[in-house]
Amino acid sequence: MNSENFGLSEKIVSSSYIRQGSEARRSHEQLIRLLLDQGKCPEQGWSESTVELFLSELALMDSNNFLSNCGVGEREGRVFSSLVARRHYRLIHGIGRSGDIAAVQPKAAGSSLLNKLTNSVVLDILRLSGVRSASSCFVVPVATGMSLTLCFLTLRHRRPKARYIIWPRIDQKSCFKAMITAGYEPVVVENVLEGDELRTDLEAVEKKIEELGPENVLCVHSTTSCFAPRVPDRLEELATLCSKHDIPHIVNNAYGVQSSKCMHLIQQGSRVGRIDAFVQSLDKNFMVPVGGAIIAGFDEAFIQEISKMYPGRASASPSLDVLITLLTLGASGYKRLLSERKEMYSVLAQELKSLASAHGERLLHTPHNPISLAMSLSGFQGENDKAVTQLGSMLFTRQVSGARVVPLGQEQTIAGHTFRGFMSHSEVYPCPYLNAASAVGITRDDVTLCIKRLDKCLKTLKKEAAKSVPPEPFQSQEDCASGE
Amino acid sequence: MNSENFGLSEKIVSSSYIRQGSEARRSHEQLIRLLLDQGKCPEQGWSESTVELFLSELALMDSNNFLSNCGVGEREGRVFSSLVARRHYRLIHGIGRSGDIAAVQPKAAGSSLLNKLTNSVVLDILRLSGVRSASSCFVVPVATGMSLTLCFLTLRHRRPKARYIIWPRIDQKSCFKAMITAGYEPVVVENVLEGDELRTDLEAVEKKIEELGPENVLCVHSTTSCFAPRVPDRLEELATLCSKHDIPHIVNNAYGVQSSKCMHLIQQGSRVGRIDAFVQSLDKNFMVPVGGAIIAGFDEAFIQEISKMYPGRASASPSLDVLITLLTLGASGYKRLLSERKEMYSVLAQELKSLASAHGERLLHTPHNPISLAMSLSGFQGENDKAVTQLGSMLFTRQVSGARVVPLGQEQTIAGHTFRGFMSHSEVYPCPYLNAASAVGITRDDVTLCIKRLDKCLKTLKKEAAKSVPPEPFQSQEDCASGE
Amino acid sequence: MNSENFGLSEKIVSSSYIRQGSEARRSHEQLIRLLLDQGKCPEQGWSESTVELFLSELALMDSNNFLSNCGVGEREGRVFSSLVARRHYRLIHGIGRSGDIAAVQPKAAGSSLLNKLTNSVVLDILRLSGVRSASSCFVVPVATGMSLTLCFLTLRHRRPKARYIIWPRIDQKSCFKAMITAGYEPVVVENVLEGDELRTDLEAVEKKIEELGPENVLCVHSTTSCFAPRVPDRLEELATLCSKHDIPHIVNNAYGVQSSKCMHLIQQGSRVGRIDAFVQSLDKNFMVPVGGAIIAGFDEAFIQEISKMYPGRASASPSLDVLITLLTLGASGYKRLLSERKEMYSVLAQELKSLASAHGERLLHTPHNPISLAMSLSGFQGENDKAVTQLGSMLFTRQVSGARVVPLGQEQTIAGHTFRGFMSHSEVYPCPYLNAASAVGITRDDVTLCIKRLDKCLKTLKKEAAKSVPPEPFQSQEDCASGE
Amino acid sequence: MNSENFGLSEKIVSSSYIRQGSEARRSHEQLIRLLLDQGKCPEQGWSESTVELFLSELALMDSNNFLSNCGVGEREGRVFSSLVARRHYRLIHGIGRSGDIAAVQPKAAGSSLLNKLTNSVVLDILRLSGVRSASSCFVVPVATGMSLTLCFLTLRHRRPKARYIIWPRIDQKSCFKAMITAGYEPVVVENVLEGDELRTDLEAVEKKIEELGPENVLCVHSTTSCFAPRVPDRLEELATLCSKHDIPHIVNNAYGVQSSKCMHLIQQGSRVGRIDAFVQSLDKNFMVPVGGAIIAGFDEAFIQEISKMYPGRASASPSLDVLITLLTLGASGYKRLLSERKEMYSVLAQELKSLASAHGERLLHTPHNPISLAMSLSGFQGENDKAVTQLGSMLFTRQVSGARVVPLGQEQTIAGHTFRGFMSHSEVYPCPYLNAASAVGITRDDVTLCIKRLDKCLKTLKKEAAKSVPPEPFQSQEDCASGE
Repeated sequence: MNSENFGLSEKIVSSSYIRQGSEARRSHEQLIRLLLDQGKCPEQGWSESTVELFLSELALMDSNNFLSNCGVGEREGRVFSSLVARRHYRLIHGIGRSGDIAAVQPKAAGSSLLNKLTNSVVLDILRLSGVRSASSCFVVPVATGMSLTLCFLTLRHRRPKARYIIWPRIDQKSCFKAMITAGYEPVVVENVLEGDELRTDLEAVEKKIEELGPENVLCVHSTTSCFAPRVPDRLEELATLCSKHDIPHIVNNAYGVQSSKCMHLIQQGSRVGRIDAFVQSLDKNFMVPVGGAIIAGFDEAFIQEISKMYPGRASASPSLDVLITLLTLGASGYKRLLSERKEMYSVLAQELKSLASAHGERLLHTPHNPISLAMSLSGFQGENDKAVTQLGSMLFTRQVSGARVVPLGQEQTIAGHTFRGFMSHSEVYPCPYLNAASAVGITRDDVTLCIKRLDKCLKTLKKEAAKSVPPEPFQSQEDCASGE
Repeated sequence: MNSENFGLSEKIVSSSYIRQGSEARRSHEQLIRLLLDQGKCPEQGWSESTVELFLSELALMDSNNFLSNCGVGEREGRVFSSLVARRHYRLIHGIGRSGDIAAVQPKAAGSSLLNKLTNSVVLDILRLSGVRSASSCFVVPVATGMSLTLCFLTLRHRRPKARYIIWPRIDQKSCFKAMITAGYEPVVVENVLEGDELRTDLEAVEKKIEELGPENVLCVHSTTSCFAPRVPDRLEELATLCSKHDIPHIVNNAYGVQSSKCMHLIQQGSRVGRIDAFVQSLDKNFMVPVGGAIIAGFDEAFIQEISKMYPGRASASPSLDVLITLLTLGASGYKRLLSERKEMYSVLAQELKSLASAHGERLLHTPHNPISLAMSLSGFQGENDKAVTQLGSMLFTRQVSGARVVPLGQEQTIAGHTFRGFMSHSEVYPCPYLNAASAVGITRDDVTLCIKRLDKCLKTLKKEAAKSVPPEPFQSQEDCASGE
Repeated sequence: MNSENFGLSEKIVSSSYIRQGSEARRSHEQLIRLLLDQGKCPEQGWSESTVELFLSELALMDSNNFLSNCGVGEREGRVFSSLVARRHYRLIHGIGRSGDIAAVQPKAAGSSLLNKLTNSVVLDILRLSGVRSASSCFVVPVATGMSLTLCFLTLRHRRPKARYIIWPRIDQKSCFKAMITAGYEPVVVENVLEGDELRTDLEAVEKKIEELGPENVLCVHSTTSCFAPRVPDRLEELATLCSKHDIPHIVNNAYGVQSSKCMHLIQQGSRVGRIDAFVQSLDKNFMVPVGGAIIAGFDEAFIQEISKMYPGRASASPSLDVLITLLTLGASGYKRLLSERKEMYSVLAQELKSLASAHGERLLHTPHNPISLAMSLSGFQGENDKAVTQLGSMLFTRQVSGARVVPLGQEQTIAGHTFRGFMSHSEVYPCPYLNAASAVGITRDDVTLCIKRLDKCLKTLKKEAAKSVPPEPFQSQEDCASGE
Repeated sequence: MNSENFGLSEKIVSSSYIRQGSEARRSHEQLIRLLLDQGKCPEQGWSESTVELFLSELALMDSNNFLSNCGVGEREGRVFSSLVARRHYRLIHGIGRSGDIAAVQPKAAGSSLLNKLTNSVVLDILRLSGVRSASSCFVVPVATGMSLTLCFLTLRHRRPKARYIIWPRIDQKSCFKAMITAGYEPVVVENVLEGDELRTDLEAVEKKIEELGPENVLCVHSTTSCFAPRVPDRLEELATLCSKHDIPHIVNNAYGVQSSKCMHLIQQGSRVGRIDAFVQSLDKNFMVPVGGAIIAGFDEAFIQEISKMYPGRASASPSLDVLITLLTLGASGYKRLLSERKEMYSVLAQELKSLASAHGERLLHTPHNPISLAMSLSGFQGENDKAVTQLGSMLFTRQVSGARVVPLGQEQTIAGHTFRGFMSHSEVYPCPYLNAASAVGITRDDVTLCIKRLDKCLKTLKKEAAKSVPPEPFQSQEDCASGE
């Protein structure tokens, strides 16, 4: 209420109470002021009432909510269902304009503000999480894969001759398809086995660059967050290579924001060499629904070029989700989530190690992977790794989600490229294994229950093996355990 | 509640009342049964309580809502903010899998069902709206422009040699950028002036095809819905041409679902010639928030190819919005909206005609455009068309949204291509004009208020012209009147 | 947002758009200003967004929503469940103080404002609906019966000797119990049969007053809205009688606000004689959930005395519901509802008449009852009126709710008083009948479906009667057809 | 969804996923089953999704949500505003029938179930909280004061001759007015000072009984929870007295459920003597909005008599709030809240003690009061206790709510009775003081902030006293510090 209305209220209810109410209102306004002024994630999270007040204020600034608006255009933010209007807080116009997903809409000052602030708050969080020199970013309402495609399509205009993308192998379909969709030929560089870890083969990468000719290479496409025993790519060295050969470098940092190690790699890469953009998922890092990503980088002009590459308006939904979440968490809340995740990683590692040894297996030694762990399933190896696959199916049925089993010898052809040893990031990994990850939001209950059920499944499988009992009917490995 | 729980309830509350409650519940289930069985938009709209019951049932089937789930993956559908969880009805996993946006997710049976049903219901509506032989479609959580880009990127794999897209000119940035983003060179074919209308220059299109060589042409990219005095492209003839030269044909049907004429053109084009895909906006046709589109076609295999081209998962938000809306409307409700729109078109035309003649202008004669109308502003022509531009600004300030003024002689360069007479779809349109459209959801109040305010503005402008008063400060034309 | 925050927003998003947003916000504030200034129901209904903005503003003024409040009392408006907080718009403190349900709470300026405004808006509506000289009223979160009890308890302090309440018979339990609960002995005055109508026996009332001695009579307790063939009491004459004998007069106007006739009777009664308070239900007149009532009158001091009689705080829920509803409807919307109701009354009367004559029955002639209608069931009369009772049960099963059948010869004892001919308001009504009412919110579909199903039931019953088929098992009359 | 619909879903989405979804749904049903079967508060709290599923199931059973209902009654559960419908989960019919607030409604099986289950769950919690032999209770949508009135009105029918209620003094208006409203004359028995504590004067009570004659006494009306230095009444002894003299005994247990001591007193009283009913507030014990209470007792027949005394239907809102809250908390969650409260009581006592000694005051020694504490303000005593009053005002302005200051020598007349030393429960308390309470839901932050601000205020006051600065303008004591 404005001051006139507070004044009128004092005639109805004792003025000292109204004045206190008005004073209290100001403290919410003050939080909003800080946000508008600094564009940063508030240190302390906001209450739900401040968040909702803010969103309703934004909505009032959009023309579809003007009380005396009349619309004779083809896109007026009209909504038929009140369920739909309500769930979007009446912010209907989406974000961006035909020219640029980061542009301001004349019809929708509130939505435009939402968009700008979200990008600004998210940039603040990326910096806090370790990439201190990131200069620019934007939220895009497509998931990681499509965001990578956008980056590649933008590079096309800078490197019209290029036909290849050099890509240290990671067995995840979206990022592979991101290159195919953009019209490029992925050049897969196999990983090197170091101890239990699969790491970037730097020599092979450089050899490929020279072989193909740098001008024919659109970019190097590297990866941080990944399933163990693969570990994050050697970003510093790759960035240096890219710099040396004047080749762009795009980093798939899908769920890496939650790990200070992944963020540190990007920060270091950009310091010593070249990183043009790094892409991360909203849902995997910020506990929001699937469907958004952040494209970030160190050169504002390039990031803006990508944002201008997106043709047309876009859904504000992922921006809204991440803004609500970060305002509610506050910077301190997000940091707390990250440290809880890290702690759970240690717990999970410890418990998996004990379990493994109890079953004659071992926790693979993958210290460079800060999120994902792998436990060998050597004892279940065999013809077609049926037992391994069955374990995946059993876990699915017992509501253990995200525990991914990887048998040996899978083969998969995607867009003409055949991956041997598919799922294991390698043609030659020595044993089947099971993955479990400590991702943001995981609880101690998740760990405890998972270990308990896994233990039971392993015991059951062994008994069956002993008795040669026919296994329970199962999901295809593809379906229930690929983790994609 | 299941029958056991109804049974227990009978011990607490008189069994005849409980039985009637249980019976009543069945009638909701029956509506859901019909939807699941037939995959069609229900004839009569559902009540909000049925819609919400259905959505909560879907959510219960997703693993993030399993009471005893434990998650150790990197993507578990965890949500931090209860505001966010609630606004998505706890459907968090999005749609699709890394391989295919239309694929089913093991972790999310409910979201998968939502996705499949939405596509099925939307297809039903496209057929009802006039494209009876459409065989397949899917909702994609990107707006029209990006959806067109996806179509072009998919065609790339079929036509590796092609570099051009032939495009009868329409002055709207997104669809132009859609081609640039996909990496193609748009070949702009100017329109022909027939009476007041701007229509497809078929001869010029065919000449271009022959000149460039059909194999070098990725596709013809035509448009139905557009601002008058441009009218929908001659789809039948273009489709025939494409068929003859074996060139794909992609139709931008942005807000054409709401017009039986546009839909009829597509139906006819597909019958006599070739249309590979047609793309329409969700928000412009179905009164939902910005951010989704439907890609549809007549060859299931091709549409599926496009859906497989989208790398990774995607937001379920646009699917959810359109499903809620169509279930609430029902087929009969949607048809009612369309007929109201048509009626308002006549009212708007009539009122604009009267207004125009009162001000010495005229309603341009554009009978082939079923949605958008144009009124000449010949009397306001002059040095830089300042008065025309000012009219746009005045309307914006007076909360008339969507009324777009088009001065002469604008020039705009996008991605290296210069458009003369920008906004008018022509280098040579004879007079400036103002657009108003009758789009789905428009009310009689919209029309009445718009005419009234427009009348006032025109009078004010004339007075000012007479007195040479300095005009009120204004928005740039770009900002407030481009209609984009 | 305050002006400082709008100022900061202009640095982020183009200032002309922000200014327009700020301007648009002012139009919502303007509506709120009018409400605060005049305390009247707005002529035009508010949009949901204005309503919710207003409620969230109110909530911010309550101490439980102060960002830096600390509470060390025993009642601090703490809420555990966010579902609960949300559904009350975070207005937790209820209304009133220990001294007075209409009093202002220091801890809750917003809730206090809500309370005052609701009472003021409701008073405005009572006046608009016909009781133009009503001077005061308040919403109380108990239903009609308990509100009547409150009135009686308040009168006790004014008339310590009184032991009786004179009450023209109406067969509805709550209002009878209201007197018992207050500790008084109801003196039941039987109605007079005039044509088909049952009307107040004025002579008997006066005789009772004289017989008991005016000083021993707490008040006359009359009724407006009731089931036909009873009609509203002769209020003018009763008011005159009360005035003459200096006896208070309390009117049970349960669902009478929706009828201009009932309201006119009260207005006239107060003009020519004495009416101390009239009580009406919120749910029955304003389409809100059950649980609130309005106690209104012509002497502010007496109404305030009643409000001070309510010991302690009370739920704000009914006030919130009626305020939301009236702000959304606006005065014009409420008047439209009333005129639709009146129209439906004619339709229902016409259709019942036709149906009755088709079945050899007749619509009872009850022109003084503006809401309820009765159709004779003479043909179904018989031993225990089994067929009549069965009709009630059949209608219940067929989801015709509110159609009440009244057999002859029922007897019911409540708190020691035996009612012969219970449900029919008379010991001697000549025929069984069926009631149907046209109450606010009724739709044409309600009428059509009811008539159709009733027709079927009557036909079935006749067939059964012809064949002496054993009737379907049924609900007890008490349960399913008493309309209470 | 029923099994048929799950079956159909298997044709759309892989059947193993659907089956898992269906299985997961069953676990929600299982929780509901337990509730229906046992009628107890679940040990573990339910998730919001189970709670909302359950409420929507209940709503479907009410006739206003039947898809093919037609209504021709005067009360059909119609709701105009969708905001209102939604916030009540579409449960519109309220609870009870005209005859009995605990009765089942034919039109509303779901609401009836809600009502029965709430009463049953609440009874379970009362037992768990210490009154193990409580046999019956019901939630009533009026606050504590009005609930007490209902108890007294019910007793009237059992004790027609009685005119007095014996009431050990407690300075809280509602409970005093509860007796006045019911039409009785309160006989105030002053408390006895024992050390710092004010305790029941048992001899005086017995003397009064004998003086008035037991048959003229409606009941003894005692109190548990209260502001220190008053402590809970000696319930055991009072109950014994009542038993001896055959006088009913009603206990005001306003916020005593949260204290095992208060509950123990009631349990013991009922064991050794007579307690007819005990009444507690919903909001003060269960962290829900103001407006509901629980009337409980040991004799089912008497409790039922009270529930039948309430004339007419009532709001379901308080029942809904407490049911949602208890299902969400679970028994374990409620017990956790209680133990946290107890812990905070110690913290608050400790901190107040330190603060008091730092300011030359002391924490009054009131070990029998388990919730409220009092700190002397002897140093601020003086002419009219202005400084004491000012302290109250300063705390209010600094958003310390619930800290109540009690000056000496206040006088207040309520309904003809003059209380000397009002607010202090005594005519002769030796010093002014300040109250603070540790009530359910209090946090450590509340305590810390309160102590900090109180410290500042005390320092400021002392400085002002030293300088004789005119004090800051203040709220009347009545308004801001009475704690009512």
